[in-house]
Amino acid sequence: MVMANSSINSVLHQGSMLPHEFPLASLQRPASFHSFSSTWAITNGALHVSPKRWNCSASSCCFRFRECRCRWKRIVRSCSTSEFVISNDENYSNKQVVSLTPRLYDYVLKNVREPEILRQLRQETASMRGSQMQVSPDQAQLLAMLVQILGAERCIEVGVYTGYSSLAIALVLPESGHLVACERDAKSLDVAKKYYQLAGVSHKVDVKLGLAMDSLESLILNGEAGSYDFAFIDAEKKMNEKYFELLLQLVRVGGLIVIDNVLWHGKVSDPLVNDPKTISIRNFNEKLMEDKRVSISMVPIGDGMTICRKR
Amino acid sequence: MVMANSSINSVLHQGSMLPHEFPLASLQRPASFHSFSSTWAITNGALHVSPKRWNCSASSCCFRFRECRCRWKRIVRSCSTSEFVISNDENYSNKQVVSLTPRLYDYVLKNVREPEILRQLRQETASMRGSQMQVSPDQAQLLAMLVQILGAERCIEVGVYTGYSSLAIALVLPESGHLVACERDAKSLDVAKKYYQLAGVSHKVDVKLGLAMDSLESLILNGEAGSYDFAFIDAEKKMNEKYFELLLQLVRVGGLIVIDNVLWHGKVSDPLVNDPKTISIRNFNEKLMEDKRVSISMVPIGDGMTICRKR
Repeated sequence: MVMANSSINSVLHQGSMLPHEFPLASLQRPASFHSFSSTWAITNGALHVSPKRWNCSASSCCFRFRECRCRWKRIVRSCSTSEFVISNDENYSNKQVVSLTPRLYDYVLKNVREPEILRQLRQETASMRGSQMQVSPDQAQLLAMLVQILGAERCIEVGVYTGYSSLAIALVLPESGHLVACERDAKSLDVAKKYYQLAGVSHKVDVKLGLAMDSLESLILNGEAGSYDFAFIDAEKKMNEKYFELLLQLVRVGGLIVIDNVLWHGKVSDPLVNDPKTISIRNFNEKLMEDKRVSISMVPIGDGMTICRKR
Repeated sequence: MVMANSSINSVLHQGSMLPHEFPLASLQRPASFHSFSSTWAITNGALHVSPKRWNCSASSCCFRFRECRCRWKRIVRSCSTSEFVISNDENYSNKQVVSLTPRLYDYVLKNVREPEILRQLRQETASMRGSQMQVSPDQAQLLAMLVQILGAERCIEVGVYTGYSSLAIALVLPESGHLVACERDAKSLDVAKKYYQLAGVSHKVDVKLGLAMDSLESLILNGEAGSYDFAFIDAEKKMNEKYFELLLQLVRVGGLIVIDNVLWHGKVSDPLVNDPKTISIRNFNEKLMEDKRVSISMVPIGDGMTICRKR
């Protein structure tokens, strides 16, 4: 197995030090707190460890941290193999939260009860252009769960693509349910329509080919403001704010607006990434955080999803 | 900056190859598909890349993958700095899902609207034994969101600790709301009670000091089966299944049972980790996956949380 040989790894592999107390202060200290080795990443806020990269022979061997007088945490004992993020802020109580690794994400996917028709749609979409736009199966399962918890009957999706998330929603809607599905690309919408048909949910779906802005505006002009329970935004990211404002009119008090890609492959948190899409998502997240018209919950599922509930 | 110097890193750093097409097949191929360098981890299911570990000078430089004839994906162009998991299964359409890094988790935490009283409770708890048991602020916000979406009035929490999640729930319950808070440790429950008082929600919380099994059984004996809307399990992991069975009696159809720590620092997905707690969580997840009495949604937030909705 090819492994990294950085000096820090070498130090960490001195078996006599482990799993006993380990004087982290003796390690070469980087100029910056960011990514100073292949096995760690430290920011002011937290310390990230990938224990399995340390190549320990014991599968259950990794490390826990304890406060010390300096700003660092000391490694004190072994506990687990998996990757996790430890909040380094005292106020966050050394809370460990999981960081998805491929194996752990596989595990999450294995815990998705994906209907066969969705699996087929996903397979057909896999070879198509833009297939990475499709929401992940675990995300779609959460969307369907939210629709059910809310008891939603009237839904809107902005950005259908080939229909994976809209079909997941339509499948759990009651027979009287209604989903307005907005998409500007006819070709991908054709795939979606085929699967609505195959799944026997076409009667619940009102497909709107064209610009979502126009479709949403015409719903408002049609007197449908305040009549929707649930909306999902997964389209042109720079338009999120505009879609949100229109959907906030269309959704009833207590209804939900869920926004996809709010973590944007993590780029939102990198101050050095400033392309227009990242900036617009970052700015929109900031605005949502201050928007008293909704309660919010940002969930690190898929590419990040914020659930907004209209007050 | 101290960086790993594996041969693969060296190849990747040959600037002339990047950001143009890169013949991955020419890389030294590991005996196993797992963790073959400090910058990648490949499993049968997915390929995990930590682009910033490649130490590129351009902050926006990392890589995207495209199918090639072999089982590998080829690196084809630069796109982002952040860590993400790419599903390598054709059926998952090269879907990229975020993997929390410390910086990205900080970002998520900055997007939590944490009430001041919860912040104070978190600070007081930080110095206490077992403080890592406290749910993360983003988790508590999702719990509160679920309670609000459901319109829950009657809730149960199994495992209060110092009350962070129960207080987050009590704060969003209506004045007529009722939360049964079960905890066996008197000392941590005292902290919780103090904060219920400070937050002005004591009248909504019915504190049960003692074994949760006894408390839940007495609720059932008291004729309260089917009368609860929402339950949260965050206590002794080996007891999850027993708590779940009792709560499934206590919760109404359409009500929720949310279970914490279902990803257990990622240990559930590691076949080499087989301590009793990990085994019991893994087995319980498997049972839930097959349990037709509930709809489920496993969410990779905090240490992993499964939302179950009673059918």
